Amino acid sequence: MIHITRRETFNAAHRLFKPEWDDQKNLEVFGKCSNPRWHGHNYVLYVTIKGEVDPATGFLVNLKDLSRIINEFVIEKLDHKNINVEVDFMVGKIASTENLAIGIWEQLEKPVKVLGAELHCVRVDETEKNSVQFYGKNNLKN
Amino acid sequence: MIHITRRETFNAAHRLFKPEWDDQKNLEVFGKCSNPRWHGHNYVLYVTIKGEVDPATGFLVNLKDLSRIINEFVIEKLDHKNINVEVDFMVGKIASTENLAIGIWEQLEKPVKVLGAELHCVRVDETEKNSVQFYGKNNLKN
Amino acid sequence: MIHITRRETFNAAHRLFKPEWDDQKNLEVFGKCSNPRWHGHNYVLYVTIKGEVDPATGFLVNLKDLSRIINEFVIEKLDHKNINVEVDFMVGKIASTENLAIGIWEQLEKPVKVLGAELHCVRVDETEKNSVQFYGKNNLKN
Amino acid sequence: MIHITRRETFNAAHRLFKPEWDDQKNLEVFGKCSNPRWHGHNYVLYVTIKGEVDPATGFLVNLKDLSRIINEFVIEKLDHKNINVEVDFMVGKIASTENLAIGIWEQLEKPVKVLGAELHCVRVDETEKNSVQFYGKNNLKN
Amino acid sequence: MIHITRRETFNAAHRLFKPEWDDQKNLEVFGKCSNPRWHGHNYVLYVTIKGEVDPATGFLVNLKDLSRIINEFVIEKLDHKNINVEVDFMVGKIASTENLAIGIWEQLEKPVKVLGAELHCVRVDETEKNSVQFYGKNNLKN
Amino acid sequence: MIHITRRETFNAAHRLFKPEWDDQKNLEVFGKCSNPRWHGHNYVLYVTIKGEVDPATGFLVNLKDLSRIINEFVIEKLDHKNINVEVDFMVGKIASTENLAIGIWEQLEKPVKVLGAELHCVRVDETEKNSVQFYGKNNLKN
Repeated sequence: MIHITRRETFNAAHRLFKPEWDDQKNLEVFGKCSNPRWHGHNYVLYVTIKGEVDPATGFLVNLKDLSRIINEFVIEKLDHKNINVEVDFMVGKIASTENLAIGIWEQLEKPVKVLGAELHCVRVDETEKNSVQFYGKNNLKN
Repeated sequence: MIHITRRETFNAAHRLFKPEWDDQKNLEVFGKCSNPRWHGHNYVLYVTIKGEVDPATGFLVNLKDLSRIINEFVIEKLDHKNINVEVDFMVGKIASTENLAIGIWEQLEKPVKVLGAELHCVRVDETEKNSVQFYGKNNLKN
Repeated sequence: MIHITRRETFNAAHRLFKPEWDDQKNLEVFGKCSNPRWHGHNYVLYVTIKGEVDPATGFLVNLKDLSRIINEFVIEKLDHKNINVEVDFMVGKIASTENLAIGIWEQLEKPVKVLGAELHCVRVDETEKNSVQFYGKNNLKN
Repeated sequence: MIHITRRETFNAAHRLFKPEWDDQKNLEVFGKCSNPRWHGHNYVLYVTIKGEVDPATGFLVNLKDLSRIINEFVIEKLDHKNINVEVDFMVGKIASTENLAIGIWEQLEKPVKVLGAELHCVRVDETEKNSVQFYGKNNLKN
Repeated sequence: MIHITRRETFNAAHRLFKPEWDDQKNLEVFGKCSNPRWHGHNYVLYVTIKGEVDPATGFLVNLKDLSRIINEFVIEKLDHKNINVEVDFMVGKIASTENLAIGIWEQLEKPVKVLGAELHCVRVDETEKNSVQFYGKNNLKN
Repeated sequence: MIHITRRETFNAAHRLFKPEWDDQKNLEVFGKCSNPRWHGHNYVLYVTIKGEVDPATGFLVNLKDLSRIINEFVIEKLDHKNINVEVDFMVGKIASTENLAIGIWEQLEKPVKVLGAELHCVRVDETEKNSVQFYGKNNLKN
């Protein structure tokens, strides 16, 4: 078994807030990340998949195919968008990096299987200092 | 004469658009950067100043002072903000990286002089691929 | 379960040596890292914690809290210090990156629990080429 | 148990192709990576080993020894070489990053054991966007 | 006047040699870079242009246009190619980073003018340690 | 004329202080950088030289020669050393990054001339946030 990691980037706006709280309460919990007029990030996404090397090609999967599904199911939905308002798989959720990583996992799990591999890790870097890694729903239950 | 460069970062939302144009026209000129619901970036700022080394300290200026004025005049105004709506020195301008670099220069030119040095360059990286450098108003006239 | 990684930095002096050996023996074993007049590094620290996402906030823990305990229990003790002489949890140990990573783990294990999460990995980069990862004392016994 | 990672680099030429296919078929499967006149990369190699810290030195292994065997068994064979034609452990294989990571593992597994540690992971970055991680033959069978 | 820098990458094979010298002489002068079976690099290209900001757009030039001409006149010719054999503007020259930077300048000088800006600097990083900057032919004569 | 930049690194200890001041006064001026027990950094050095390309080789200078003189005149003197105590060209000076860059310039100016090029810039990064650039003594007088 081998692991492959593909790096992609997207730029998006978001804010951290709960709609049932007022601005003051959101500010107390989420700090400046709750700014009602939004802020944004250059997110960096690392998608790691795993599986067997195909002896015919020397590939786990063709990286063009991996890049294509990441772009179709994740980047096109997030890049230059407002995560809270415009991203179908994030609407109604708090736009934390944790929820974003879980949401991206849910987008990619099946398409990666169709490629003949298994999704291993979704890592999302929000800033140079903060990063989230999600290893899948089964781990959530353990 | 010696040059010193200080690196700082800020995360902000913006969009590129002209209010006198409709969304369609803005989309044609500015592409996905014109998204009316905003997007955002992890901006990286490099401020370069120049001057003589003070023999008493071995410093051009004390970097704590340089960091303090960059934070007071630039970062606090931009970090976790909406550049188009909330940043006093950008309101009414197109929120391009070019205008942002020029605006940051105007914020820092005098405070750097008060420190006893001269502002040499303001560099703003919007993404890993795009960067603007501004060397001051006198150069604009040349 | 989700993982979060926080990156922090500190600058410190150290040397590698055993006090019971003379300088010549220390030089043979530890090379130039044994220089009795010290050298130093810009250390980069990555602290990874794990646990469940709190549905009320979308957070594993508030990153401000994580940053606060890393600064209180680790960075303030190490930054701009001499590791061999001034750092309480390193005195009497060889100041190797291995021992440093284990020492930082011991500093952080309980405070991370108080935050409601579990310490997963302490990674310390001494240079661009050398890095140590420690996954905890239980692994030491296995 | 502790993990140590050493980073090394090498520059090499390669192409992706199967000798039993003609250029057109190779182009369909491998794209521009099949260019018969070669292309190349600045490969980045991360070798992670694991084991117990030696209380006498504070080291898992002396990093000079680790660096020495990586250079002797891997870098000298690959650096400024043509992977398809000149690298003994890659001749007859497709020069994919997957096969390269597996080949490097096979080169290093025994020498790392001689040092008194265990090889944990070979990571090879072909570009800024593409990376392969190999955790060993036992994992291949699982 | 403002400066804008665009970063692009390409992967290519090359060797350093003079055809009128034999392999031994080439090895003496160019070292392992003269390997007759080629090696390669992940080149990083930084193109800096300068000019006035257009008040109608806040842009020096539209970065999509700048990226387009860099790709058309440089990247498509170099990426996944053999610099010595396949790149029209390098054939017959020694494939040094110096000559590559000058060659890229000659490719871009006119197209940048058509965009309404002036080419200021072509920087080519061959490895993490080696970089060339070329500021134009007029400087060559000074 | 073309410019070439070589990147090298060194790890060293230092402190900022004036021997004629007591610890309290040094603390007021230099902050935690004045710690009498030292601290240290992974310094990054960028040496830029300029001159004409030699048509016989395509080189400004052979980079092996440039690397050799940087190592002989700078790195061997600084790496794994205490800058205040052990580095001949820094003893008696305040060990600021400004003075370090000027001192390195003085070490390299003549050897670069012997290679047939001219020293253009010495850049020293002390941390990820702080960098000094020195363009030579003539500029100091202007």
